[in-house]
Amino acid sequence: MTSRVGRLRAELEALPAAAFLVTTPVNVHYLTGLISSNAALLVTAEELLLFTDGRYVEAAGRLEGLTVVPVERSLSLELGSRLHQLTPGPVAFESSRMTVADHGRVARSGVVLTSVERAVERLREVKEPDELTAIRRSAALLTTAFERLTQEQVVGRTEVELARWLARTLTDELGAQGLAFEPIVASGPNTALPHHHAGDRVIAADELLLVDAGCVVDGYSSDCTRTFATGTLDDELRQMYDACQRVQAASVQRVRAGVLGCDLDREHREVLSDAGYEALHSLGHGVGLEVHEGPRLAKTVEDALRIGCVVTVEPGIYASGKGGVRIEDLVAVTADGAEILTLLPRNLAVLE
Amino acid sequence: MTSRVGRLRAELEALPAAAFLVTTPVNVHYLTGLISSNAALLVTAEELLLFTDGRYVEAAGRLEGLTVVPVERSLSLELGSRLHQLTPGPVAFESSRMTVADHGRVARSGVVLTSVERAVERLREVKEPDELTAIRRSAALLTTAFERLTQEQVVGRTEVELARWLARTLTDELGAQGLAFEPIVASGPNTALPHHHAGDRVIAADELLLVDAGCVVDGYSSDCTRTFATGTLDDELRQMYDACQRVQAASVQRVRAGVLGCDLDREHREVLSDAGYEALHSLGHGVGLEVHEGPRLAKTVEDALRIGCVVTVEPGIYASGKGGVRIEDLVAVTADGAEILTLLPRNLAVLE
Repeated sequence: MTSRVGRLRAELEALPAAAFLVTTPVNVHYLTGLISSNAALLVTAEELLLFTDGRYVEAAGRLEGLTVVPVERSLSLELGSRLHQLTPGPVAFESSRMTVADHGRVARSGVVLTSVERAVERLREVKEPDELTAIRRSAALLTTAFERLTQEQVVGRTEVELARWLARTLTDELGAQGLAFEPIVASGPNTALPHHHAGDRVIAADELLLVDAGCVVDGYSSDCTRTFATGTLDDELRQMYDACQRVQAASVQRVRAGVLGCDLDREHREVLSDAGYEALHSLGHGVGLEVHEGPRLAKTVEDALRIGCVVTVEPGIYASGKGGVRIEDLVAVTADGAEILTLLPRNLAVLE
Repeated sequence: MTSRVGRLRAELEALPAAAFLVTTPVNVHYLTGLISSNAALLVTAEELLLFTDGRYVEAAGRLEGLTVVPVERSLSLELGSRLHQLTPGPVAFESSRMTVADHGRVARSGVVLTSVERAVERLREVKEPDELTAIRRSAALLTTAFERLTQEQVVGRTEVELARWLARTLTDELGAQGLAFEPIVASGPNTALPHHHAGDRVIAADELLLVDAGCVVDGYSSDCTRTFATGTLDDELRQMYDACQRVQAASVQRVRAGVLGCDLDREHREVLSDAGYEALHSLGHGVGLEVHEGPRLAKTVEDALRIGCVVTVEPGIYASGKGGVRIEDLVAVTADGAEILTLLPRNLAVLE
């Protein structure tokens, strides 16, 4: 954790601020190890002050190198009354996480607040070796669950039943700490809805079945999608699958340090467009302590990928009322290019 | 949904604003029925404009009475470039949910933004009959799971094993749509940590076992905690249990329309203090589409409870390193007083 705070302090030197106020729980977790829903960390050049309420004071007290300040009321009210005494200079704050209302309460202390959008998030994008190990384990476990899925009888079961089977397999059978999100199981026309979850529809023969799942191991998430056939598909669906598979493989090939997220996204949109399809969503996102984090592979993201980033590559093709295909792998950016962490076949597999 | 928008429009009349911009997903869900992670609703006196991305356009298109505006990029960027053309006057926004960064992007349109903290949340606090029915069903199912728990052998199993058993019982056996949160199972000294989750500790005989769980039925959450003994307890723990049970029963008795959240919270702190204990957390919170929502029963909340509110009453007593007791019921505020929705014994039960 010390090196993480050190890197944040280095960022601080380039900012017109004497301290950094971290109010996002997952960022406090990243910097201190404390898992909580209500904590704020004030990072100055010399000190680490952790504000939290009674529920977390005992756990926080066990952490090394920080001073715990118990707060009674809402963090923002408390900071609003104390911040000015704690630090003289301008304080950088997490403007892409702090709400307008909380900002108003903190600003009442009279301290000058400097907006910083994604400082800790930028640090988190580059994974340390231990973090990569955890993500690899999380992805390997998820891969095993997908392999078991292909041995299952699916036709005649409901989407919800299959989603529960997958959840149990991940946590009870394989020992994941939890789910990164509730598994998405969509069948037939439901596959055309990119964020359908799982309903009471019975999976039928000769249609598409889309499964998008993720688990958590040692605090780190994984994320993977495969689309299957439950028998024979008509030409339109078969062509959608082939196009999605091609663009996904090409996009994974393009992942390497130095490439911009917006370029990867634009290229995949162009390939889809040339094949006669329209991209409904971005190409991918980072994965780590959160299942959706930076770097995003999306239109507006002009950041270059760095060695140690872990991203999903997940193009989708959707035909309203008819069906949809999405293929998603989790990929780590390495010194040599990229490493696929979800090593599963991408060819159309038939489950019955 | 129409009456909910109507009530929001009535609020709008009292505000210096020509429109209300709803950017919180759960609030958009409440007002329109759309479940999404990325949607904004602009409510004017005549129109309902729903901004969302390609993933949700098809689902949104099925809803009555609103105009869907597909957006390509981030909502706040899009609103920042269009809002001024869509509405002439000042626009109220959800300042307790919108981040400082998003606010900056939306404000770029040149439109005047008026901060409103909890307008839709205040509407959501008073449940409609259908919502109460869903919460009652959710609580009844949770109650059944707790009853089954008391038939289980617990000593010798790990906290995680018991948490998974409870999760499976709720979703697979009893048919809940999902969990309101991962069940908290704490044993022995872990019960002293109010937000311990569930770990690999093996539950032993003659100690405390705290179980805090909730499920979701028809979109609505429930929440309940019981603390058990796994045999004989020493006098200190036994006294803690008795004190917690007394203050919990007294607090439930005091719940009725017109009482302020801060008064209920203060009274419970005083009773705890008189018994020689200190309250580590607030007395309770509202439950509905979210498992933590308004009205809170906490120090700073000067709102009176209204008929139709649903709140938890959950005092806790914690002795660091030793153990903790929390007893939580879900309670609906009625015309006559209050109705306990989690009808379970509060006496100390022994599980072995």
